[in-house]
Amino acid sequence: MSTIADVAARAGVSKATASRALSGNGYVSPETRERVRAAAVDLSYVAHSSAMSLATGRSLSVGVIMPSLARWFSAELLAGMQDALFAEGYDLVLYGIREGSAERARLFEHILPRRRFDGIIAVGIQPSAHELERLLQVSSPVVSIGPYSEGTSAVSIDDAVAARIATEHLIDLGHRDIVLLGGRADAATHAVGDKRRFDGYRAAMIAAGLDEHVRQASGPPTMPGGYEAAVRVLGDRRKRPTAFVGICDEAAIGGIVAARRLGIAVPAELSVIGIDDHEHAEMFSLTTVRQHPREQGAAAVRLLRERMEHPDAAAAQVTLPIELVARSSTSGIR
Amino acid sequence: MSTIADVAARAGVSKATASRALSGNGYVSPETRERVRAAAVDLSYVAHSSAMSLATGRSLSVGVIMPSLARWFSAELLAGMQDALFAEGYDLVLYGIREGSAERARLFEHILPRRRFDGIIAVGIQPSAHELERLLQVSSPVVSIGPYSEGTSAVSIDDAVAARIATEHLIDLGHRDIVLLGGRADAATHAVGDKRRFDGYRAAMIAAGLDEHVRQASGPPTMPGGYEAAVRVLGDRRKRPTAFVGICDEAAIGGIVAARRLGIAVPAELSVIGIDDHEHAEMFSLTTVRQHPREQGAAAVRLLRERMEHPDAAAAQVTLPIELVARSSTSGIR
Repeated sequence: MSTIADVAARAGVSKATASRALSGNGYVSPETRERVRAAAVDLSYVAHSSAMSLATGRSLSVGVIMPSLARWFSAELLAGMQDALFAEGYDLVLYGIREGSAERARLFEHILPRRRFDGIIAVGIQPSAHELERLLQVSSPVVSIGPYSEGTSAVSIDDAVAARIATEHLIDLGHRDIVLLGGRADAATHAVGDKRRFDGYRAAMIAAGLDEHVRQASGPPTMPGGYEAAVRVLGDRRKRPTAFVGICDEAAIGGIVAARRLGIAVPAELSVIGIDDHEHAEMFSLTTVRQHPREQGAAAVRLLRERMEHPDAAAAQVTLPIELVARSSTSGIR
Repeated sequence: MSTIADVAARAGVSKATASRALSGNGYVSPETRERVRAAAVDLSYVAHSSAMSLATGRSLSVGVIMPSLARWFSAELLAGMQDALFAEGYDLVLYGIREGSAERARLFEHILPRRRFDGIIAVGIQPSAHELERLLQVSSPVVSIGPYSEGTSAVSIDDAVAARIATEHLIDLGHRDIVLLGGRADAATHAVGDKRRFDGYRAAMIAAGLDEHVRQASGPPTMPGGYEAAVRVLGDRRKRPTAFVGICDEAAIGGIVAARRLGIAVPAELSVIGIDDHEHAEMFSLTTVRQHPREQGAAAVRLLRERMEHPDAAAAQVTLPIELVARSSTSGIR
């Protein structure tokens, strides 16, 4: 088995220089780095992945930071990233870290600085200025997924446009009393996407002269969250809206389940539209604005690979297309 | 920066021996291994995780192989493993590999043999004899989650008992025409758990003298799968059962949604019980047999850690408890 000394001798450099060249820590001229790496390859200085990593300066692994693993969107994203990374021979190292947790601080302060990744994908987290600095110090390229793009390359949809399309669909059908179901207008840092959806909804309402109808039934962007918010709003029939825009499909489906339980016919008495095209949307005949999280995961990997090849290129933002999918949960006012 | 030559000199062994000791590849006596590792630590032969891995013979990472990422069960398991591994300072390297795919062959033939993990957790996959051999060749301890325990340590619930408890609950309420909703009796390799649930259901039916009522409405163990299977079975009112045992909560919830759509009252006209205690069970008032996938993930990590400490101990199987959770989707026959 070749050692670092063998590699150094073959490359005609000191062992310290060879170590620097292979580890990527400390300055070595590009020419020397190449010579050392070539020597390492010639000498088969590769017994397993750790040695490979030292030899090539690459870890063949990508760190993925996600605040939640348990939602449909996250699982689809993860599957998209997994497939794309696996196809390119990269390992996916997963950090499922909750917002504001002690784990999160430990990740940014102690774990990431000691790991060597060829790249990092940060999903739906809004890094603080300090965290972002930490991430960029790790020196691998960073790509984020979601509406957080300062300083990093990012893949996202336009959340405001998605909510505007959904709201305008209902307005076109003649609805005026349209409630945004789920999410929170006073969005905490972890829900910037929800905040932008609220903005898109409100903009469409105001543009149609429906300012006084702007109303959000707050709640978690989940099926139970949408269910409970819908029961609250639908409970008083004199204040009952004629339509819901779900902050996401899961909230919208919760709204449909709530309506059925209360004996309110969808879409005859209540139209419901979502945002996502969730795997359950078809089953509930849900009209929605489709996004493709699996494709977003793959796009993030493509963007990351480009950043690996061209580390000095300016940060790039990729906005993926969305589209209205008309099913039968929406209809005109009778 | 210290090199392998420095470490070898300090430990009083050849460079080849030091390499073997640090890499874990090839035989070195335990005493020598300890001496080399101590020398590596003394010399701070640690610049980053790759060097650390060489120095300690540990990669501080665990490989997790899962056939599906997109189900509630998988996501909860993954979160449980993630939290437990992170707390112990281990990285989770995720391989989301579909059953029977080309990726799966590549994983077992080319990827795993070249990676160094301190342990591997295989979720719900049934390795072939050849794959199992490959896994065990990787030499790290292997723990599986799910009903596949040959040759490996495993964490699971008793699927047959879970289905028996669910079925007996309905029999105790006076039901006789009880259909198993979802899953497939002719289970493919990826659905051994579903097969065992069918066995538990059938055993309970036979024990109650209900042999001729044994009936499975086959379909994917998902909400849409349960929905479609339920519509099929409920469509002909002369053959309509009085109760469903869902192969899992998602199938059971699909059955409830189908019943509501068809105007069949749950539980007055149809009782439905599931297995899981899915996050949506509460919202559908679903009676179910609860399991804790998050806890199963944590238990798998504990078992793996024990196997790391005691690599020569016999394979251990851990069966986690399950319990009936009575909500209001089941009732006696009127």
